[in-house]
Order: sequence, then structure tokens, then C-alpha cells
Amino acid sequence: MVKLNSHPAGRHFLQIPGPSTVPDRILRAMDYPTIDHRGPEFQALGKKVLADIKTIFQTANPVVIYPASGTGAWEAALVNTLSPGDTVLMVETGHFATLWKKMADKLGLNAEFLGGDWRRGADAAQIEARLAEDKEHKIKAVCVVHNETSTGVTSDIPAVRRAIDKANHPALLLVDTISSLGSIDYRHDEWGVDVTVSGSQKGLMLPPGLSFNAVSDKAIAASQRAGLSKAYWGWGEILEANKNGFWPYTPATNLLYGLSEACDMLAEEGLQNVFARHQRHAAATREAVKAWGMEILCQNPAEYSGVLTAVVMPRDASGQHYNADAFRKAVLENFNMSLGQGLTKLSGWVFRIGHLGDFNDLTLMGTLAGVEMGFEVAGVPHQKGGVLAAMKHLTATAGNNEKLAKAA
Amino acid sequence: MVKLNSHPAGRHFLQIPGPSTVPDRILRAMDYPTIDHRGPEFQALGKKVLADIKTIFQTANPVVIYPASGTGAWEAALVNTLSPGDTVLMVETGHFATLWKKMADKLGLNAEFLGGDWRRGADAAQIEARLAEDKEHKIKAVCVVHNETSTGVTSDIPAVRRAIDKANHPALLLVDTISSLGSIDYRHDEWGVDVTVSGSQKGLMLPPGLSFNAVSDKAIAASQRAGLSKAYWGWGEILEANKNGFWPYTPATNLLYGLSEACDMLAEEGLQNVFARHQRHAAATREAVKAWGMEILCQNPAEYSGVLTAVVMPRDASGQHYNADAFRKAVLENFNMSLGQGLTKLSGWVFRIGHLGDFNDLTLMGTLAGVEMGFEVAGVPHQKGGVLAAMKHLTATAGNNEKLAKAA
Amino acid sequence: MVKLNSHPAGRHFLQIPGPSTVPDRILRAMDYPTIDHRGPEFQALGKKVLADIKTIFQTANPVVIYPASGTGAWEAALVNTLSPGDTVLMVETGHFATLWKKMADKLGLNAEFLGGDWRRGADAAQIEARLAEDKEHKIKAVCVVHNETSTGVTSDIPAVRRAIDKANHPALLLVDTISSLGSIDYRHDEWGVDVTVSGSQKGLMLPPGLSFNAVSDKAIAASQRAGLSKAYWGWGEILEANKNGFWPYTPATNLLYGLSEACDMLAEEGLQNVFARHQRHAAATREAVKAWGMEILCQNPAEYSGVLTAVVMPRDASGQHYNADAFRKAVLENFNMSLGQGLTKLSGWVFRIGHLGDFNDLTLMGTLAGVEMGFEVAGVPHQKGGVLAAMKHLTATAGNNEKLAKAA
Amino acid sequence: MVKLNSHPAGRHFLQIPGPSTVPDRILRAMDYPTIDHRGPEFQALGKKVLADIKTIFQTANPVVIYPASGTGAWEAALVNTLSPGDTVLMVETGHFATLWKKMADKLGLNAEFLGGDWRRGADAAQIEARLAEDKEHKIKAVCVVHNETSTGVTSDIPAVRRAIDKANHPALLLVDTISSLGSIDYRHDEWGVDVTVSGSQKGLMLPPGLSFNAVSDKAIAASQRAGLSKAYWGWGEILEANKNGFWPYTPATNLLYGLSEACDMLAEEGLQNVFARHQRHAAATREAVKAWGMEILCQNPAEYSGVLTAVVMPRDASGQHYNADAFRKAVLENFNMSLGQGLTKLSGWVFRIGHLGDFNDLTLMGTLAGVEMGFEVAGVPHQKGGVLAAMKHLTATAGNNEKLAKAA
Repeated sequence: MVKLNSHPAGRHFLQIPGPSTVPDRILRAMDYPTIDHRGPEFQALGKKVLADIKTIFQTANPVVIYPASGTGAWEAALVNTLSPGDTVLMVETGHFATLWKKMADKLGLNAEFLGGDWRRGADAAQIEARLAEDKEHKIKAVCVVHNETSTGVTSDIPAVRRAIDKANHPALLLVDTISSLGSIDYRHDEWGVDVTVSGSQKGLMLPPGLSFNAVSDKAIAASQRAGLSKAYWGWGEILEANKNGFWPYTPATNLLYGLSEACDMLAEEGLQNVFARHQRHAAATREAVKAWGMEILCQNPAEYSGVLTAVVMPRDASGQHYNADAFRKAVLENFNMSLGQGLTKLSGWVFRIGHLGDFNDLTLMGTLAGVEMGFEVAGVPHQKGGVLAAMKHLTATAGNNEKLAKAA
Repeated sequence: MVKLNSHPAGRHFLQIPGPSTVPDRILRAMDYPTIDHRGPEFQALGKKVLADIKTIFQTANPVVIYPASGTGAWEAALVNTLSPGDTVLMVETGHFATLWKKMADKLGLNAEFLGGDWRRGADAAQIEARLAEDKEHKIKAVCVVHNETSTGVTSDIPAVRRAIDKANHPALLLVDTISSLGSIDYRHDEWGVDVTVSGSQKGLMLPPGLSFNAVSDKAIAASQRAGLSKAYWGWGEILEANKNGFWPYTPATNLLYGLSEACDMLAEEGLQNVFARHQRHAAATREAVKAWGMEILCQNPAEYSGVLTAVVMPRDASGQHYNADAFRKAVLENFNMSLGQGLTKLSGWVFRIGHLGDFNDLTLMGTLAGVEMGFEVAGVPHQKGGVLAAMKHLTATAGNNEKLAKAA
Repeated sequence: MVKLNSHPAGRHFLQIPGPSTVPDRILRAMDYPTIDHRGPEFQALGKKVLADIKTIFQTANPVVIYPASGTGAWEAALVNTLSPGDTVLMVETGHFATLWKKMADKLGLNAEFLGGDWRRGADAAQIEARLAEDKEHKIKAVCVVHNETSTGVTSDIPAVRRAIDKANHPALLLVDTISSLGSIDYRHDEWGVDVTVSGSQKGLMLPPGLSFNAVSDKAIAASQRAGLSKAYWGWGEILEANKNGFWPYTPATNLLYGLSEACDMLAEEGLQNVFARHQRHAAATREAVKAWGMEILCQNPAEYSGVLTAVVMPRDASGQHYNADAFRKAVLENFNMSLGQGLTKLSGWVFRIGHLGDFNDLTLMGTLAGVEMGFEVAGVPHQKGGVLAAMKHLTATAGNNEKLAKAA
Repeated sequence: MVKLNSHPAGRHFLQIPGPSTVPDRILRAMDYPTIDHRGPEFQALGKKVLADIKTIFQTANPVVIYPASGTGAWEAALVNTLSPGDTVLMVETGHFATLWKKMADKLGLNAEFLGGDWRRGADAAQIEARLAEDKEHKIKAVCVVHNETSTGVTSDIPAVRRAIDKANHPALLLVDTISSLGSIDYRHDEWGVDVTVSGSQKGLMLPPGLSFNAVSDKAIAASQRAGLSKAYWGWGEILEANKNGFWPYTPATNLLYGLSEACDMLAEEGLQNVFARHQRHAAATREAVKAWGMEILCQNPAEYSGVLTAVVMPRDASGQHYNADAFRKAVLENFNMSLGQGLTKLSGWVFRIGHLGDFNDLTLMGTLAGVEMGFEVAGVPHQKGGVLAAMKHLTATAGNNEKLAKAA
């Protein structure tokens, strides 16, 4: 029989860009007996989490919570707002944007993909130009990934919003925040997003198993005439049942316990402080990468992710990249740390450092030390000093999270 | 702020017919740190649960595990095997069969509903007759609920299988075992079922959040030409990734920890012993109901459920049923026990006693005492002695679980 | 390897008179990472539990908390207040009073034992008479067990206090409340007790591992001249360190987490409600015992325990008691319930039903059903109807906990 | 109300030299319902832990387990083997040796203290000389601390044994291994120790609350004539009850669950591998200290502790040490890490880094980065490069734990 959770001594460092480390408070909150999902105690829980989650999306509108992984919430965003054959404009920012595009194809949509090199975010000017061309308004939705988990590149959502507005185009704006929500500043209402897709296992610090659609009034209106078939994902019955704190089917009660605790934790720290903490750790990580003489995958500093940093492996004399997966394996076996792999196009030559969720300075230092020692052990050429550079950044900004947040 | 889990003194009795009480071993198993869903430790877990779950469905074929509630697995069974406009034959055994039928409608299927009075299981002869009529084989699937959670009535799945075979009809057989799997004997392969739908929160003793499709080769073949649009629910990519113990999207890792433990627990007790235990508790419960002078909703003793017993409230002088929900409220407030409500057609005049999952003789006795005391407190006329009758049944069969299992 | 926690299906009924069932909230509270016992977070915890625990003893004076079982707190009470050769007057109420007496002997005290038949509490008149005789005040302390866990008999502590006062005797009053604290009304200050001994695993609903000495000013004064050697148990350094929320040695941090939660739970329910709940369950249990035609060990109704009921096994034709341990074994094996055994003098002919701690009506009914079914299975002659009688008592008083408390 | 466990983001680094970080497996093991301490399930547990714990002490003799902190086990070692007025020879290795000495005084022993400067271990030659002088064998026991938690200095126990033997002296050898057991190689039988004292919260990775006496036959013989009064600590009844897996009083059941798991974990890793891991981390820590240009308190490299490293704060121009506590406070507030304080004689000018228990390379690196960054933030002059030096040591020895163990 498989023996689970038999890690070697000490805590595993789970430095993939999600699932992030689930804090003890959340694990314990989830460890309570399941209750009657139609009773008054559940109702109080339901009402609380439905109210709390709005603050995380920075919206006054409803947020639909699914017992599903983030992929499910992608599907929900599409099937609730679109009809068979509808054209949607999607932006190739990386692996996950590509998966979402493929999903749109499978669901019978006509998904137009604005090509990209996986090293930059969505180009608002390009979107504006494409929409301006679309005089007949065939494009029903623009879909953008806020933080590309595969690349460590963010896209400027307010700029995308402005692009749509400048083109005077009625398309809906659908945004994936699976790996940014609760870690990078994100404002559903202020930024005029119609459907925000997210998941539980990143900034919300929960295990995977819940996903979300924050919806605008315009999205709800669209859902009433959208023709794609749907049942499980349909917003209508859920929003109706949610009014009383319930769900139309059995919800994932224990994950909702965890969600309640997660929202409390984020509120205790203060969302703006949480965002500042992530930015600071990301900056320290980039200092390390630069000191190692390595290249950050993301090309545009304005688009650096606060959640993860994707690193390009150096090349050998023949111009070939050192193998990222052999390196990650060495790190796992020698230092009990999981790093994120390069996905599809990035496979073998990129690895990703997650620095998100319930995370602090010393865990970051353990992480970066593991990377630097991993280079050594795996024979990857690098300059020493990455760890030192990160420490320098952290000490220079120590204790300043709150101040940074206020300045932001 | 809502204070969760602030039940009054002592353990809550969660005697709804699911979610069932989650045992401590499973809660603790789920309380471990989330791991990298693409790493070797996860892979071992994935392979284990994918193998274990087959034994629960009594199948040698694959079982697809979704991070979703049971409703999602209903949808998965339909969208993987059927095409828009396909006719499906569904059987009205109660509230959940009706919901499944409505889902089929929403998904663009032509769902034919064999009417029923919610007090009997599926009528195999009626199914056979309808299929025999269908010379053109327009009917692509027959959908039956094995254990109607709303009524406490089971349907004879082997008989349904024989009906299809006798009619020489190629329709697929889709069976919902959401509230029977792991509690009532169920054999996916031996009974020739094509898709078995199930969920985590009943006989598997897990919190809600996982659901299942066990699939036959015929179902897999059907899935390759089925035309309903699907992405999240598509079996293809999942089965492919499962070969290596992984999933195409982030699985609900912590619920999988729980599933692993649940399978271990069922194996330790022995599936046949588990089934015998449920039958014995159901029989004791019926003894109590009869002694109270109450009516069991299920009309056919051969179809009594081992998982729950639905009870008809007595009538007053004017022929009106005493109110079931007022009674349940009295039980909850006075005795800290949740009972199942009557759903839709049964609302107000039926309540349900769940006796499933991680459950034993004394918990059953606490449950039945709570019902009998609830009658008293709520002023529901009844004969004393239900508790005594159940005790008589339990003592007469005490310590015989293993023997009963062998005799079965 | 031993497989722990592999109970058969369903929750074990732990109906010994302590350790009582530890509620989920407390288990989870204890499951947090251990912290620095000299840091500010610990300090806040220390101050909280040191304040909270006073409310449970109903004292404004300090309470010393030991990482030890209750036996240790017995020793602490003696070694802190007495000198080698001191005479102490102890009262033979049962097994535990006898053990405390033996401990006094071992520690070099001259323990005088007022004999008893283990079926009655301490006789205040007898104590008064003995003290009145002691003109030279050789007796330095009177030691009484408030609730004899071995017999289910309580002693009237205010009456003992009055006896000492009437005799104008300076002896200290030492009281063991190991199995009564937090379950039966007990007032350290109002009743003029000098040292109250208690433990964590009964009314406080914690696992065993903490024990207590609540102390009067007179006891503290005595401790400054007491000559018995002591180190670990010495109050002085502990009280000094406690002023800042710390301990002189490493305290049992995780049990203190649990204690904090336990005090919160008792405060939420209200101590007087907790006491009334225990009395009501004890009364229902006695109704059951009487209906079975069995004898309650405790002879004086005024001294019935609210925490446990000791039951005398019936006699066969030859006048011999049916074997209590064979009966208990049958209950454990058939119904997964632990009952308390008869200790020393009571061995084999008495068993004990614990009804304390985190306990409610339905758990009591499961318990009593288990006893009644156990009689049947083990062939112990009894009248049916105990369970019914208890139900009658519970329904007659249902929902009245709060009212009962107010009337008390 | 105090809010516990509200650490800022991320896991706290508990780098005091004990309590050490309790691993998740142990916390979860302790989180199971308490069971009947006189029932068969407990008996299996009792037998298992009593057998397992012997392997950790490397003894074939019994080990007594107390529900108490380590201080209690010190007292137990003395009161079981000695009589009032007995002379014991103790060695001043640091704060804890001094506390043990004071305890001996309080218990009425004549404790002779071989002075020391808190920077060296016990001097075997000095002990031999003193024993040789003691022609009348007034000295009944020699008491040594194996690993001084206050100084990071170990004492050579086999050398002390040889010293006693060379002096042909019958004194018992009592050794405190509270902070070494399960972390530094220790052999109760092979080294001829009579009583080994230990505790749960260091190498055993448990919360505080259990402590131990491993006993030799000679110690047991001594206990039968030892005259110090004892009750709770008395070995006799405990050893008798332990034969059947039980205890004479209610044991700390949930901590025993944890002990069972801890022994499993140590066995899985292999005790020799555990020791080698600690030595490697200690060596890496010393590399860091040296690189910072700081002084290690321990003067003799042969006596370096594998469990903690005590560091002397540098001096300013006036020759005054920078304040260690201000530094520790800066580390706690800025980097969420607890370091050990300097105790009594070492107060203010020494701090301690714990590197014990459930600990790995990256947690060590986080720890050392926190120290180095703390120097910076607190304005403590130091050379950069400590972290780098430790990384160099770790990479040079990566993956070699097993090999190192074999070579040892």
C-alpha cells in the first residue's frame, strides 16, 4: 500500500506556483465534521462565505462558488455567457491561455487567438485594433489571463478594459485570475470585468476543489440569452439558492469551512498588505535570478508577476539549454522542494519558482537557497550570490510591508 | 462574524441521508498539507486511489474521479455518451430522478420519463415494453437511480439490465448510485452497467466534493462519437492522464487523501460486511417505524433501502398529515439531530432517517430515540416502543454482521 | 505494528467516567504547532488560561496548572502544605480516596482514615467530632473527595467546611474535584476550600495530561513553612513565573491550547447550564437503572453524582452477582462502548456509566440502549424499559436546561 | 480574548533548541479521540510505545514514561534512587545542570557541584579524581547533562563511565538527555548509564508533556532501598502496571499517540541517519557562524552539539557585547523566527540557534538567512557570507546522509 505523507525529515517546500502551501489554520478549519447542507448552521456559513468572497474579488456583485477545479470555472464563464458559434477573442499569453482557447473550441465557440511569444502580457492596442475591425460585433467576448501561471507574466486588465471601451465594442470581458486572486491586486468592479474566473488553491491558500465566477450585471443579462447548453454550471439556480445561503446541489462543505477561514486570514492581514508582501517577495526573487546571471522569462518589467518567477535555464557551449527537469529532480531529491516545471512550449528549458499564498521571508530564503544549491548539485553553471542579493532586498525593505502597502 | 461549529454540547447527530458523518480517520487524512499534483508523491496517491475505487464499484474498468458534486457526475455521464436531441429513457423514482431528467432536458436531450408515484423502484417490465416498442433504437440510454435518496426506495438494476437485454436493445444503461455506493451491494461489471454515477459524501464517508463515473467499454466507445459539447467532463483526457496517476487539471488533492483512507477503511471492514451492517440497521429502523404505527414510504419490501428510511407523518382527524418540518425542527432544537426533509412532492408530510456510512448500533439507537422523543416533544401521535423494537432486532442479530454477510 | 484508532464502524462510545469524550473543537485546538514557551504569543496564551481557569474553580485566587495527571496534583496538594509526620484526616469514600490516603502514607504523613462503606459520602458530623477531639490541633488537613469516581457518590463540601468551623479547628481543607470540576457545581472560594485538586480529562473535556491546584491564601501561607520536600510540585516558583504568563519549566503547550478552548466552550454554554445538563442526564440514567430493576450503588439520593452512575449487578439464585466485567466485555465487543469497571472492593459486581463532559441527550440514549442491549446479549436478568424510562425523563425536561439552571 | 495561532503570513520558524517543530504526522496522530485507558485498544498502544521507546534509548531495559515535563523526570531520577542527605556529584555544564543541582538541594540531597565555565562539557578526569578521593563512597550518584541546552556543549558520557569505573566507585550514573535523545547518538546500555532522563519536546518531535527515565538493573535495585519520599514518581507501581501495557494512573493518552508516531518516524528514517542529519546541520551552522566572524560558545570542537549552536554576540568598541535579546526581538518581529535566549549567566550576550528535530536543509537555510538578515536589521556588526558558507557545506554533503551514517 502507498504510504502517503512520508516526506523525509522536515517540511516539504511546495514552491510550485500553486497549489500553494495550505496554512494550519485552514487545514484545521476544514477538518471539522460535515454538517447538514440544508440546515441553519450551514446557512450561516453560506451567507458568510458568499459575503466574504466578494471582498476578495473587490466586487459588490455576486460571486458563484463551484465545487470544481479552476478549469470548471473557465467552462462556466463561457457556457453562461455565450452561444454556439459565437466568436471570442482570446490572447495567447501562455500555456493556460492556450488551454482556455482549446476549451472554447471544444464547446463549439469560434475562438480567435491573438498570437504571442509567452513572454509578454496581452497587448491592449492589438485588442483594440481587432475590436475596431469588428464592425458587426461578431466578437462576443474578450478573454484574458490576468497572471499566466505558466510564464510569470501578468496582463494589464484596466488597459484591456480601456481598449474595449475605446473601440466602442459591446464584447464581454472575461478574465482568468486563478493564480492572481488574493495575491495580486485585482478589482472586478472598478476594472469593469464581466466574468472573473478563479480557483481556491493559490492566493486563497486552500486545497484545490473550489472555483469561482464573479459576475457583472451585464454578464448576468447575457446569461439569460446565452445558448450554450449548461446544467451544473448554470448561474441561475445557484444565484437563486445563494440568496438564502444555500446551493441547489450539495456544496463542498468542508472546503467552504476553509474558505471562511481564508477570508478571515486575508482580512486580518489586510488585502493591500497581502499584495505588497507578494510584490516584495517577487522583487527579492528577481534579484536572486539576476545575481545568478539567469534570465527571467518575462520580458517586460511592468508585467512581472508577484506570484511566481519563471527562469530560463542557461545554455551550454553548444547553445543548448541545461535541462530544467533534471535540475528540478535534483532539487526535489536533495532538498525536498518542488519547483514548477516548464509547460508545453517551455518544457525542459524553463522552471518556475512559486512565491505565493501563505509565505514569508524565511520560507523564501529557504526556497532560493534550495535553487542555488540545486544549481550546484545539478551542475548548472551560475554565479553565486543570488541568495545574498535576495537577502539584501529583504533587509532593505524589512518590516516595511505596511508602509509599502500605504505607498502603493 | 458567524461562529461555525458551535453546536451545543456533545456531537451533532447528522442523520440526513448524506452527507453522512465523516469519520475521524478521514478528516485527519484530509488535513495533511497539499502536495505537488505533478510530483512523484502525488503519482503514488493517484495510482492508489484509481485502483482502490475500482474495488468499490466492483469493476475492472476505469473510474473517472471529478472534483465536483454528484450533480456534476450526472452531467458527465450524459455529455460523454450522448448527442444533442438523443432520446433517453428515464424513470421517475423520486426527486433526484426528476432532477436528472430536468438536467437531460437542459442539455438538449429528449428525455422521456416513465412516470412513478415515488413509492416504488423502476419497473423493469415497463422498461422492457418501452424498449421493445422502440424498433428504430431512438432511445440511446436508459437512466435509473439505484437508491432514491428522496424516498428510500431502491431499484433492481440486474432486472433493468435483463429488461434491456430481453428487448434486444442497444441502449446504454446509466445508473445513479450516489447514495448507495459503498453502502448497498452494487456491481458495475457483473450487472452490465455502462456508466455508474456516484458521489463522495454518502457511503464513501467523505465530505462532498468528489464525484465519479465508472465506465464500460461500450460507454467509452460511445464517448468517442457522442456529440454533446464537453470540456471539463470529457473522459478522454482524464483517462489518458490517469494512466500515469495524474489528472489533466488540478485535482482535489485533499479529498483524494480522504478517498484513499475511505477505501482502506471499507477494505478493512470488508465490503460485504459493510453492506450487511447497513441492511441490519435499516431493518432495525423499520422495526421502530412499524412499532410507532407509522407508514414507511417505500411500498415494496423488496425495494427497502439499506441507507435511509423515509417515514410518512400520521394524519390528524381531518386527514391532514402532521407537519414533518415542524417535527424535524423540534428534533433539531431539542435533540441536536438533523433529519432529512421531504423533497418537492414529499415536502411537509415525509421525513427521512439516514442510517448510512460510518455508523453503528448505538448511534442508530441515539437516532431512533431522538425520533421517538421528537414525536413526543412535537406532539405527533405515535405508539411507544419503536426504540424497544429496534433494540430487539439489534440484540437478536448482535455480533452477527460477519455471519450475515457470509449468508448473503 | 499496532494499528491505532481502528475502531469498528462508527464512533466509539467512551462512557467511562473519564477520560470523557474530547470534543472536536478541543482536539483541533490542540493540533496547532507548538510555540516558543518564552515568547510573546505564549505569554498571551498563558495569561488567558490562568485567568480562565479561575472562573471554572469559581475562585479569585491563583490556580496552579501542572503538566501531570491528577495523581500528581494530589501529591502537590500534600507536599506544598504539610510537613513530614503531619497528621491528616482523610475520608474513605471509595477507591480514589483510598489511593490518596496511600499516597499520604508514602509521602511520610500520618494519614488517619475515617472508614466508609463506599456507598456514602463524607460524614460531616463524624469529621466534626474527630476534629473536636483533636485539642492539640495535630490534624493539619482534612482531605475529602468531592465526587468519588469509583462509586458515583458525592460529598457535601460546604457541610465539611461547616464541620471544621464548628470544631474551631485550624486544619486546612483539601478537596479532590478531579471528576467533578466543570460538571458539578463547585465553589472554591465560597466554600472555603484551601486546596482544590483537579484534572483535565473529565469535565474539562481535555485529554489527560494537565492537573490543577486551586489555592487559598491560607494554603499559600502554609506552603511557606511546609517541610515535605518538593521541587517539581512547588507552588512558589510557578506562581512567581505565572505572574507574567510563563512557567518555570516547559509547560504542556498543546494541552494549554486545549484548555483555552475548553474554557471558552464552558463559558459559551454557561457553567450553570453545564451543571444542569449533567444533573438532568444523571437523573435520566437513574430512571433507567430503576426501571431495569437494578440497584444504584450510591445509597443516599442527596449524594447522587451528576457525572457517573455506579450500578450493582443483580444476583443469581445462589446469591452471587452476575459478573460485571463479562457484561462490560460483551458491551464492548457487541456495541463498541466502554463502560467503567468496578475498582478494588467493587471489582466484578459493579459497573459504572459515565455521563459527563461533552455529552448530549442522544449520546445518553445510545449509551443506555447499549447497556440494556448488553444485559440481553450477556444474559443478565433485567426488566425491559430502562431506555424508555430515560426517554420519558428527557422528553419531560427537554429544552429546559436553561430554565433548570435558573431555578437551581 | 486572546487570539491564538495568529502568526503573520507563512509558517513561524521555531528555532529555539526545543520545543522543536512538531511534524504534521505527529500533530494529526495526537488529534484522535481519547480512548479508555483500561481497555484492549489502549493496551495495544501501551505495549507498542513501551517497546518502541527502548529502541530510542538503545536499551533492553524498561523505560518509565511520565505525564510530566522533563523537570519531573529529573526529580524522578533522584527520588527513586537516593535517600535524604545522600551526596551526589553534579557537574556545572550550564543553566540546566545548575537547575538540576538546585533541585537536588531542594529534595534534601547533599549536592556537590564541580564548577565549570559553561563553555565545556563534563571533565571526566576531574570526576575520576573526585571519586577516587571518596574512599567511603559517600557519593551515591554522578549526574551529568549529555547535551547542555543552554550552551550547545555535549559531555562525553562513555568517558564519564570510564572515570567511574577507573575509580572503582559504586556511584550510580544519572544522565540528562532531554535535548539530545533522538538527535545525538546516545546508548543507555552500552554506555552503562543507570538512569537516563529525557523529555518529549526535542528530538522526539512531540509537544512538551511527556518525560522519561530509562533505568538499569542497578538503578532498580537502588530504588528498592532509596529513602526519599515519592509517590507519583515511584517506578515500582509503574513498572508493574507497564507489564500489561497499562499505567497505575491515567496516562497522557494523546501524547502517547504522538509518541507512537514519533517512534515510527525515527525508525523509518533510521536512527543513525537521524543522528547524521543533525551533525550535518550543526556543522553547516558552525560554518555560518565562523563566516560571520562570530564566536561559538562551545570551546571544544569535540563537544559541539548536534542540536543547537550558542553564539556569542560581538563586542562594540567599549568591549560591551551587542545585546542578544534586542537582536532576537528584531528577528522575531521582522522575520517571524524564535531564537533561543541566553539563560542566566549567558543572558544578554549569547543567543542560541536550534537545529533539531523535524528539520531539513531548506529550513536550516531559512533559519540562517533569518539570523544573517537579523544582524543587518538590528545593526549587529558581522561579515557577510555565513549563509553562503552553510550552503557550501550542505551542497558538498548533499544526499550523503546515509553514507555519512554508515561511515560514522
